[in-house]
Amino acid sequence: MRVLLIGGTGTIGKSVADKLKPNHEIIIASKSNGDYLVDITSLDSIEQMYKDIPNIDAVISTTGASHFGHLSDLTPELNEVAINSKLKGQVNLVLIGQNYINDGGSFTLTTGIMMDDPILKGSSAAMANGAVASFVKSAAIELKRNMRINSVSPNVLEESLDKYGEFFKGFNPVSANRVANAFAKSVEGAQTGQVYRVY
Amino acid sequence: MRVLLIGGTGTIGKSVADKLKPNHEIIIASKSNGDYLVDITSLDSIEQMYKDIPNIDAVISTTGASHFGHLSDLTPELNEVAINSKLKGQVNLVLIGQNYINDGGSFTLTTGIMMDDPILKGSSAAMANGAVASFVKSAAIELKRNMRINSVSPNVLEESLDKYGEFFKGFNPVSANRVANAFAKSVEGAQTGQVYRVY
Repeated sequence: MRVLLIGGTGTIGKSVADKLKPNHEIIIASKSNGDYLVDITSLDSIEQMYKDIPNIDAVISTTGASHFGHLSDLTPELNEVAINSKLKGQVNLVLIGQNYINDGGSFTLTTGIMMDDPILKGSSAAMANGAVASFVKSAAIELKRNMRINSVSPNVLEESLDKYGEFFKGFNPVSANRVANAFAKSVEGAQTGQVYRVY
Repeated sequence: MRVLLIGGTGTIGKSVADKLKPNHEIIIASKSNGDYLVDITSLDSIEQMYKDIPNIDAVISTTGASHFGHLSDLTPELNEVAINSKLKGQVNLVLIGQNYINDGGSFTLTTGIMMDDPILKGSSAAMANGAVASFVKSAAIELKRNMRINSVSPNVLEESLDKYGEFFKGFNPVSANRVANAFAKSVEGAQTGQVYRVY
């Protein structure tokens, strides 16, 4: 398959790329490096990407920013980070991409455990994750041309404990490899409308 | 209690108002009529409302618009209706309201069954509902001054079957009175972080 991996330079993205590379053609898009530069907060940038990279069988998003901070400090303006990036960025990859990818193609988006198991400073990310998970579930029953869509909700990564461990005290970290398996299941399997919880 | 009911002129809102009126002071805010006019898509309008209506013990939102349409016709622009109104409108009632309402006050927001049980044409609404449900769950662990927050997820209403029945074929409609009970439980009870599913 020809796989477009958006966010392929992050920890999860790299692991997904490594897993799929032996059997698939992987095109890595990212904000700052990779094979192709894309800004998922820009509709024009997303549309141009799909025009520039035709014949895609699977779109994987392992990207999307959120502001982390206490609810009492979360202003509507800071909340826009998650809305514009993790939420709208990922949803718009589907809304626009449904017009471009191949018949039978798939979309796999990323959410995160804090939508189910909240953490301090995580309300904005939880909001975006919950939005993406419910959108995926609903979009799955309407996608045409046998297209499929799933989401992967990772726990904190073993590989990212140095950076994020303080946010996830008492959580049981998972390996990026296990998370990458969920993406592979989505891309290479036949399920649709699923939330793969890697907890 | 002094209850600010935003969206108090809709079917659910009226039912909630009727239920709470005997024991509480109800102030109805709405876009087009009611005791106070508010536009929840405007940060300034929300902030002004909280300044104009002090000493609030409970905020209830039974409002929030979404575009209903097939996924293949759902453009990023049409998806903004739900993002700006049902999602950001309701979330911003909390982000701003946390600075204004009384100690021990509560927020109760509205989602909807299509986040769990998807319907055709409902992806944008499902997205907004999932966002609000996850936000509520996460915000509950961080609200200060003993404030609480819950959401109510109604099925299609018996009273709205004429209007919405076509979208909800095979669903078991519930009465607005049952939905109103969930709001009363949120306002008058002590729970927080809950999604009351009235299915």
